[in-house]
Amino acid sequence: MAEFKSDIAIARAAKKKPIREIAARLGIDEADIVPYGHDKAKISAGFIKSLEGRPDGKLILVTAINPTPAGEGKTTTTVGLGDGLNRIGKRAAICIREASLGPNFGMKGGAAGGGYAQIVPMEDMNLHFTGDFHAITTAHNLLAALIDNHVYWGNELDIDTRRVTWRRVMDMNDRALRGIVASLGGVANGYPRESGFDITVASEVMAILCLATDLADLEKRLGAIVVAYRRDKTPVFARDLKADGAMAVLLKDAMQPNLVQTLENNPAFVHGGPFANIAHGCNSVVATTTALKLADYVVTEAGFGADLGAEKFFDIKCRKAGLKPAATVIVATVKALKMNGGVAKEDLGTENVAAVTAGCANLGRHIENIRQFGVPAIVAINHFGTDTEAELAAIKAYVAEMGEEGVVCRHWADGSAGITELAEKVAVLADSGAAQFAPLYPDGLGLFEKIETVVKRIYRGAEITADKSVRDQLTAWEEAGYGELPVCMAKTQYSFSTDPTLRGAPDGFAVHVREVRLSAGAGFVVAICGEIMTMPGLPSKPAAETIRLNEAGEIEGLF
Amino acid sequence: MAEFKSDIAIARAAKKKPIREIAARLGIDEADIVPYGHDKAKISAGFIKSLEGRPDGKLILVTAINPTPAGEGKTTTTVGLGDGLNRIGKRAAICIREASLGPNFGMKGGAAGGGYAQIVPMEDMNLHFTGDFHAITTAHNLLAALIDNHVYWGNELDIDTRRVTWRRVMDMNDRALRGIVASLGGVANGYPRESGFDITVASEVMAILCLATDLADLEKRLGAIVVAYRRDKTPVFARDLKADGAMAVLLKDAMQPNLVQTLENNPAFVHGGPFANIAHGCNSVVATTTALKLADYVVTEAGFGADLGAEKFFDIKCRKAGLKPAATVIVATVKALKMNGGVAKEDLGTENVAAVTAGCANLGRHIENIRQFGVPAIVAINHFGTDTEAELAAIKAYVAEMGEEGVVCRHWADGSAGITELAEKVAVLADSGAAQFAPLYPDGLGLFEKIETVVKRIYRGAEITADKSVRDQLTAWEEAGYGELPVCMAKTQYSFSTDPTLRGAPDGFAVHVREVRLSAGAGFVVAICGEIMTMPGLPSKPAAETIRLNEAGEIEGLF
Repeated sequence: MAEFKSDIAIARAAKKKPIREIAARLGIDEADIVPYGHDKAKISAGFIKSLEGRPDGKLILVTAINPTPAGEGKTTTTVGLGDGLNRIGKRAAICIREASLGPNFGMKGGAAGGGYAQIVPMEDMNLHFTGDFHAITTAHNLLAALIDNHVYWGNELDIDTRRVTWRRVMDMNDRALRGIVASLGGVANGYPRESGFDITVASEVMAILCLATDLADLEKRLGAIVVAYRRDKTPVFARDLKADGAMAVLLKDAMQPNLVQTLENNPAFVHGGPFANIAHGCNSVVATTTALKLADYVVTEAGFGADLGAEKFFDIKCRKAGLKPAATVIVATVKALKMNGGVAKEDLGTENVAAVTAGCANLGRHIENIRQFGVPAIVAINHFGTDTEAELAAIKAYVAEMGEEGVVCRHWADGSAGITELAEKVAVLADSGAAQFAPLYPDGLGLFEKIETVVKRIYRGAEITADKSVRDQLTAWEEAGYGELPVCMAKTQYSFSTDPTLRGAPDGFAVHVREVRLSAGAGFVVAICGEIMTMPGLPSKPAAETIRLNEAGEIEGLF
Repeated sequence: MAEFKSDIAIARAAKKKPIREIAARLGIDEADIVPYGHDKAKISAGFIKSLEGRPDGKLILVTAINPTPAGEGKTTTTVGLGDGLNRIGKRAAICIREASLGPNFGMKGGAAGGGYAQIVPMEDMNLHFTGDFHAITTAHNLLAALIDNHVYWGNELDIDTRRVTWRRVMDMNDRALRGIVASLGGVANGYPRESGFDITVASEVMAILCLATDLADLEKRLGAIVVAYRRDKTPVFARDLKADGAMAVLLKDAMQPNLVQTLENNPAFVHGGPFANIAHGCNSVVATTTALKLADYVVTEAGFGADLGAEKFFDIKCRKAGLKPAATVIVATVKALKMNGGVAKEDLGTENVAAVTAGCANLGRHIENIRQFGVPAIVAINHFGTDTEAELAAIKAYVAEMGEEGVVCRHWADGSAGITELAEKVAVLADSGAAQFAPLYPDGLGLFEKIETVVKRIYRGAEITADKSVRDQLTAWEEAGYGELPVCMAKTQYSFSTDPTLRGAPDGFAVHVREVRLSAGAGFVVAICGEIMTMPGLPSKPAAETIRLNEAGEIEGLF
């Protein structure tokens, strides 16, 4: 194991190659990239169009057990596996999400990956990057301004100002904006009404950008956004306000995927970052499909644990984009399994094989679940220095008993050299043709039944409850033509159930659907099970207080 | 005259050179630019630092008569003169402001310049460009979030929530956000209070970025922002919230000036864009000082007419940055002078030499005013196709009688070939050493007396009125150590007076100072004379409705 260095120290010591060299390795000419500095670039829309008809590489999903405060290292493993595949001679690319800027000023920001499995440039990726999120914020807020402006000038569309569902967004942790009354100050400022702001990653525009296949599809989806209802409860669409064209113009550059690199100079597409609760939590379809044309293996990840992330990746992203994943990697760690086995955070440093084995129930449930989608799985045991051989062996034994394989990976400490075994096995699995991907439920199933299917087959809940108003709303959307949409579950990521303290593999619980929301542009119906926060606040000692530029012009306090 | 083409058609037909070639002509290596695409770049902070000690080129200000709906073509002349100087063999660069994104979705956006005197890429410059304004928005709103967060967590600084002067900003025309009540929705969302949003260009952060000399100065100025007052009326600063470091980090890239090019492939710095009413309305000091190190002649412009723009350029920007302008060009047109001479817009097409001569009183007043700053002036008569020889001759005669020269320029129609005479004369004037620049008033004059000096000597008002509260506030700021600051006048740009309909050269009027505001970070005291709108609204048929991407992927409706 290399000498201990912080993620930021490792990232700063990276020997980055000019981004045009990274692009060249993928067969992209300098004229086909849009550089942002010397270490970031977008891939031009024209070049992406020219790739039509090329065969696709193999798509590999990295997902994980339910997250715990111990951390599981999903992104680290995604990056490590990409590097590992390249190390064993495969042409592989990585696809992950972009980071939200706002939260970095609350808690310290994070690397994309960790240790010797990171994507760089780390600072830029935690700040403005290539401006995608700013473009999304702007497009979202233009639509909001057009709504109030329409009402101001006579409200020809007869918008019920009590039923405007489109809020505003900002990429900032600002609890003061959660609930506002706007248009105060007199006649010239419009009709006062209640509204509020969400954080940008919660914008439906973000989800749309990440699911759109090209600019024409983007514009169509933007037009389909339901922004408000009339008194007769008929929907008002963004296209009714003629907002879709201007929003697409604002998003034109943001639609082009971003190319950066790993510490080992392998290509990484970092593009889009929708919330993993009220949205589907995956990087953009455009980035994934582009990467699949340029590399033989594409390693990507989904948000949270497999119950939320992988399910949405399969049932929303793959279903809608026609993607056929070839293999799934489920990341687990000794510590996180111990926590799932009932050990408190402060006791994680002590060997406890029994707790590890008990916690494996959580892992086992996810393995079973992945099989339901017809995609072969392998388990990556992300190694920590405190893990004991007996603990690692216990996980491997458990996984073997389930008929799968568990592979210990040391990419955090050793980079690609620590993950070649997993890389070899993933490549074999992906090449085996074993995958027979199918979504969990058909498009034609009723919306409530879709929710029920996920709750019973993935979460293993015994029953699902919902007020009549929720059921009626789902029926109304079915009648309005939205019945074919998949459902997007918003619940705690810490448990299969809706109780975040219920670790392991609980069953028999009830799931209450508190609220449903229509994301007609993105193309899914959100089922909210529990409290979901769409605008975070800052802590009492925000990271912003210690973030600054040092004498050398480097950023301190961000990590 | 070339066949008529729209600005956008001309801009799209531009034969742009790669931006690294434009940089190379200025002696900047590829490694010292930060490319944004192939036609935009920032100049790295490190390179700028390396220029210290180099001699400065000559700074030439382009200003204008009071604007009228007929248009005077100030930016067009700035661009044309830059091209003209290059055409006659001088090494010249242009410095102008960036455009605000939001207003383009209300009224159609504009070119930077017009006809054959434009800066490109036009679309990018009207949209996200290099992200500077998004960075400013973010830094501004982080500070706002930190204020409410501080109050939420116990309000250790004892901020009086009724006296929070720091609002939020958005680069959008959104009248609904002018007046809001925030922090609604219960205990978790904080303490409800009234606030609102301004458009980003009105942010003090914008003014600060444009006046800061480097990142250290930027951070210091950010810390000096007064965000609120306590019950005892003592100020609370951004540095008290420890916001300055994080804001500087967010603005790190935005501080680097942007390099683009004219249609004739000459270098243009487009950087910063503060409001010309509540702020000083000039491009950034960093861009100007960098350009002066890299070119022998730097042509820049200031907002509105010379009464506001040039006065602030001299009394705020040049005073604070130690700039010594070498020459001033005052732009006038036959049509705009006719309007100043009392002709209605619909009658501008008819020859009217008497009206032109009458309107020259406005031009004459500006010539006199420029002389008060010790900078030699020349008049650029920006030619329109409908101008008659007699009208042009009348202007030249008027200017000659004042002891200066008026030169007819045809850069709009003919590019640099149409403006060589002006270029030659400006070069001679700038090289003559005639300039003896001095600000209008000394730092030590009282704040009220500074306002009075501008009103009496520049506007030619007879008296200045202000409530006792305004005078008391100015006295209080003097006692708090802000007495050395220059004043920043916010009044209508259409007249020397505060009555926008009073064209020509009125005198004897009264100017009422309605309100004063302290921009302690930017370093000026704003005197508001009349209604100033800091958050525009959208019209009943916003341009957004027709903005879209066409089949070719080009933007339609933005221009």
